Amino acid sequence: MDVKYIINKVQLYQARNSALCNHDKARYFFFQYYKEFSQLLKTHIDNRPVIDMVSEEHKAKTHRDALEVCKMGVLDVRVIQKDPKIFLSYLTSLSGCDISLMAKLVIHFQLFGGTILELGTEEHHNKYFPDIKSMKIVGGFGMTEMGHGSNVRQIETVAEYDHNTKEFIINSPTRSSTKFWIGNMAKYGTHIVLFCRLIYKGEDKGVHGIITQIRDLDSRKVLAGIEIGDCGPKIGWNGIDNAWIRFTNYRVPKENLLNRFANISDSGEYTCQLSTPGKLFQVTISQLVFGRLLYICGPIKALVVTLRTGLTYAFNRRQFGEKGKKEDLIINYPSHYQALLPMLSHLVAFEFARDSIIERLLEPKTTDERLDETNSTISGVKALVNEYTMIYLNKLRTFCGGNGVSSYNLFGYYRNEMDIFQTAEGDGAVLYQQLSKFLLSEYKKWYKKEGVTGYIIKEVQTFLATSNPMYTHTRSIPYILSNEFHHHAFLYRFERVRSTVIEKLSHSKSKKMTFLQSWNDSLLYVIEMAKAYSHLYILEQSHLAIRRCQDPSTRNLLNDLIKLYALSNIEHDFAFFRNCNFLSSGKALAISDAIKELCIGIKPYALQIINSDYNVLIDPLLNIPLANLDGDYINHMADRVGVPKANL
Amino acid sequence: MDVKYIINKVQLYQARNSALCNHDKARYFFFQYYKEFSQLLKTHIDNRPVIDMVSEEHKAKTHRDALEVCKMGVLDVRVIQKDPKIFLSYLTSLSGCDISLMAKLVIHFQLFGGTILELGTEEHHNKYFPDIKSMKIVGGFGMTEMGHGSNVRQIETVAEYDHNTKEFIINSPTRSSTKFWIGNMAKYGTHIVLFCRLIYKGEDKGVHGIITQIRDLDSRKVLAGIEIGDCGPKIGWNGIDNAWIRFTNYRVPKENLLNRFANISDSGEYTCQLSTPGKLFQVTISQLVFGRLLYICGPIKALVVTLRTGLTYAFNRRQFGEKGKKEDLIINYPSHYQALLPMLSHLVAFEFARDSIIERLLEPKTTDERLDETNSTISGVKALVNEYTMIYLNKLRTFCGGNGVSSYNLFGYYRNEMDIFQTAEGDGAVLYQQLSKFLLSEYKKWYKKEGVTGYIIKEVQTFLATSNPMYTHTRSIPYILSNEFHHHAFLYRFERVRSTVIEKLSHSKSKKMTFLQSWNDSLLYVIEMAKAYSHLYILEQSHLAIRRCQDPSTRNLLNDLIKLYALSNIEHDFAFFRNCNFLSSGKALAISDAIKELCIGIKPYALQIINSDYNVLIDPLLNIPLANLDGDYINHMADRVGVPKANL
Repeated sequence: MDVKYIINKVQLYQARNSALCNHDKARYFFFQYYKEFSQLLKTHIDNRPVIDMVSEEHKAKTHRDALEVCKMGVLDVRVIQKDPKIFLSYLTSLSGCDISLMAKLVIHFQLFGGTILELGTEEHHNKYFPDIKSMKIVGGFGMTEMGHGSNVRQIETVAEYDHNTKEFIINSPTRSSTKFWIGNMAKYGTHIVLFCRLIYKGEDKGVHGIITQIRDLDSRKVLAGIEIGDCGPKIGWNGIDNAWIRFTNYRVPKENLLNRFANISDSGEYTCQLSTPGKLFQVTISQLVFGRLLYICGPIKALVVTLRTGLTYAFNRRQFGEKGKKEDLIINYPSHYQALLPMLSHLVAFEFARDSIIERLLEPKTTDERLDETNSTISGVKALVNEYTMIYLNKLRTFCGGNGVSSYNLFGYYRNEMDIFQTAEGDGAVLYQQLSKFLLSEYKKWYKKEGVTGYIIKEVQTFLATSNPMYTHTRSIPYILSNEFHHHAFLYRFERVRSTVIEKLSHSKSKKMTFLQSWNDSLLYVIEMAKAYSHLYILEQSHLAIRRCQDPSTRNLLNDLIKLYALSNIEHDFAFFRNCNFLSSGKALAISDAIKELCIGIKPYALQIINSDYNVLIDPLLNIPLANLDGDYINHMADRVGVPKANL
Repeated sequence: MDVKYIINKVQLYQARNSALCNHDKARYFFFQYYKEFSQLLKTHIDNRPVIDMVSEEHKAKTHRDALEVCKMGVLDVRVIQKDPKIFLSYLTSLSGCDISLMAKLVIHFQLFGGTILELGTEEHHNKYFPDIKSMKIVGGFGMTEMGHGSNVRQIETVAEYDHNTKEFIINSPTRSSTKFWIGNMAKYGTHIVLFCRLIYKGEDKGVHGIITQIRDLDSRKVLAGIEIGDCGPKIGWNGIDNAWIRFTNYRVPKENLLNRFANISDSGEYTCQLSTPGKLFQVTISQLVFGRLLYICGPIKALVVTLRTGLTYAFNRRQFGEKGKKEDLIINYPSHYQALLPMLSHLVAFEFARDSIIERLLEPKTTDERLDETNSTISGVKALVNEYTMIYLNKLRTFCGGNGVSSYNLFGYYRNEMDIFQTAEGDGAVLYQQLSKFLLSEYKKWYKKEGVTGYIIKEVQTFLATSNPMYTHTRSIPYILSNEFHHHAFLYRFERVRSTVIEKLSHSKSKKMTFLQSWNDSLLYVIEMAKAYSHLYILEQSHLAIRRCQDPSTRNLLNDLIKLYALSNIEHDFAFFRNCNFLSSGKALAISDAIKELCIGIKPYALQIINSDYNVLIDPLLNIPLANLDGDYINHMADRVGVPKANL
């Protein structure tokens, strides 16, 4: 075998897990917490993925396990406040358990507790945090209704303030206002943060959050004025008891209003620090961002595990070959390696982007603008990562043939558990639009600052047009392989689509469409813009991350991997690049050839790369028969299902 | 609303279900059987999809239900022989039940019984068919081993002929020779057709089929010499008890050899009607073709059901909109309709192709060549339909947001149950290669007949080159919308990729690669060739099918739907068409515009189209809350999970 790279294992490991464990002690610290908590978990609960259990039993197990985890006394809302790094390390450890258990604790600590932390005040913190820590109370997040998921602003549940008793009177006025999918609540939950319209002196003040008790703490009976039931079995997360909830003149004391930003004084005066209900709403849901980060970490973890299985199998399974010779390893079929290696390159690029987001989220809060940018970027990356993950999980299963169908190899498990990640806390189409809005407002700001009407658009278009000739036809391999070309292509794509959107929006304006009409009319481009930006962000962060790796040969390998990400991404979008004449057909073919060469070059190192992820090193490998490091999948599958050793 | 088409319901219905129920009485007959059997089923068993049951219980239920269905006395291997149309109508009805029940009966009647029918002789038929009919014996198909799935030719189980006792001695010589995934066998099965290498006088005669009893009929105990166990939980089909099986000097009488083509006489002479073990092997597995048809019907059924759900929801769910106005229907967002309507167009095209295949399979057997062509086409269409189905199922789920996650809406159910269809009886990559081999041999025959070395390739290339100029730049909308253009594009794509493959294979030959090496080196193109051909077949069959519809306006609608299929397929492959300069960038953009216009034009008729499928008309709609014809999804979801009616 031609030795193309000499890998420095430590450096590869550090580069792959930069946000978690490089030489910086603070980060190693994070990693240490992850490791210790992971090991501790195993001594307390059976944390293996649940693969064959009815949902009722699964819910009971998940609740028992959650109580056990809380008994360990490690998880605490105050940790989110004091050291979010450590809290994140705990949640990351939990992603190695059955996903329902992780989800239950995230809902309880981060969605319920975190909302009280962000929107509540000291009194709420002191009153609730100890009971959240011990799980004496079980919390949920009461936002979604039957009629409204994505468009939360239009929820219908009302809380009317009654100054006589200093209480809110909560009602579900229609069937569509029924709270739906409220996690942790159908069987075991005691409290939710209820999101509802606050009606003050007959006036609708918009969406507010109110801590609302659901069950009596002693008897665990549902309180009068509340009707509740289970939403039934689901594609995944069946250990979570999702509830529908209805309120009829249910009364909650005034002090349960999360009043950091909006308050009702003892004398009964409503005040709000924010200028409009719209802004209050934005602040109210902005704390979902931390959660969205988890929706990036989860799919990446699932990809690490399943891609590792797919690669290990491909490097050991033989099928077909020359007559009279040993059959060929399936990794050597282009249909396999030209699919698996681009997946690996995407995964590593996603990880670099994830690590950069973690670092950004954990930096001390700076400007609103910076926060806006981070939030919008997270939205795009979350949508993108989930989209790729679902496609890859399906392909990976088929690459393992019939063995992929066995529950033990976890392809179905992860697909079912990850499915909900695609739309939870923001459907892809909605999140992409959110990012695009930010990207257009950035453009607008710049445009306003420059102050030359029409000029900028023209200039951008000129840049787009003139930038072509020098690149379109260059088939030079070094240039095709250069990071400079990749960055230019990704940047070009983003700027080009943004300029198309701007053009379309201006054009519709002249046709007297409303903004919403013209926005919707351009929706496919709006979504493309956000995707293009997300890929640009991922590429840039990958380039930055690789620079940190000091060993030249290891860095070369990572560099080639990201080149493969960039080129296979460009190839996937040839239609775009060819249609705007960014590439000639000859250059496109040269790119496809370069991809094949990169795949062949990286192939011998694929297992080492995938196995340098911290999840793989520390986790018990989830006991996946096809993924065992020794590659002896036949014996591991056979042992798992009780096939006796051959007696001949 | 602009009325673009006036639909003749009867004609739409007949066109959509041509193989099943047009004016031809034989076909109506088929349909009648389907209808009656469907209704009969409901009175005998609870045939609803199983969505929340542990696999042990699911297996028991499936077995009980299968026995009940057999008690009805309708299913019989002899029906496959006498009137495959009717047998197919029964299986089609069963696809409306829990998929495991269908799978169990298909394995029993079609894989086990059908193999005995095709490879066995009269004595086998008379001996086994009555017991198969009553399910006194439960049959399975013993082909796959731990070490070999796709490459069946290399299976390791041996049956050595012992003339002293006129028996075969069956052994599993290695752990990898363990029979694996053998359906119906882990708990309840009594017999399999065992595929194994026949060793005759020390010589390996290749793969043969032998009826092998596994359990005693009275005690249902596993017979001595056999070890058996359950393969464990799976992504789908959990009502099927898949087994691993090992043999140790297990003896089976000579007469159990399925001896239609290869026989051992009473005097102990081995004879084979076919020239080579390779041909015997081909004949042996050729009867899988009928099964492969079911692997086309199943995913199409799943698509009908889930697309119907997605469309019904999109036409009723509102989210976001102008301030102060009713929110917009989500079907009106381009991100929805430009995805859902191309899906609908693909589904209808797939159905036309399926119906043509049914008709071909049911025609009296003609030439080997015709059979070869049919088999190869089925392979390609099977692979293609399954590929699209899995992608669509995932998208459709997200288009229904959180409600798509509820098991009641069956997205997860179908995805899990259909998953195995992707690789069962042939993984996509293997099947595509099978089709490509046929397409190349066709070319070779033609080439040989023409007898002008090198000329043909050159001519094809010339055709490919000269055909461009006149089309590349034409942006004329009528031309872009013409069936002629679509057919030309699809044909061009196929011929172009085939010529690339031929070129690559010849080139590798000159580099002294073995055929297998050069084949594998060109694998991505080989697979593309088969996909291109499959799409061409689907398009041609759709054009033929539409001609049968006599009502002009209904025909126009179907025509536009297939235009949408063709153009969205071309758009999906813009990279190819642009790279070989078949399309100019301007024309490509015009095509994208035309797609949007077609979607907008067809949109108002989408529900009527999807609801004209026979599955929808007769089935109990599977009680899917989001798919109810009245569109009142909130109340249906609410009723399903017990939400009380609003009391305000």
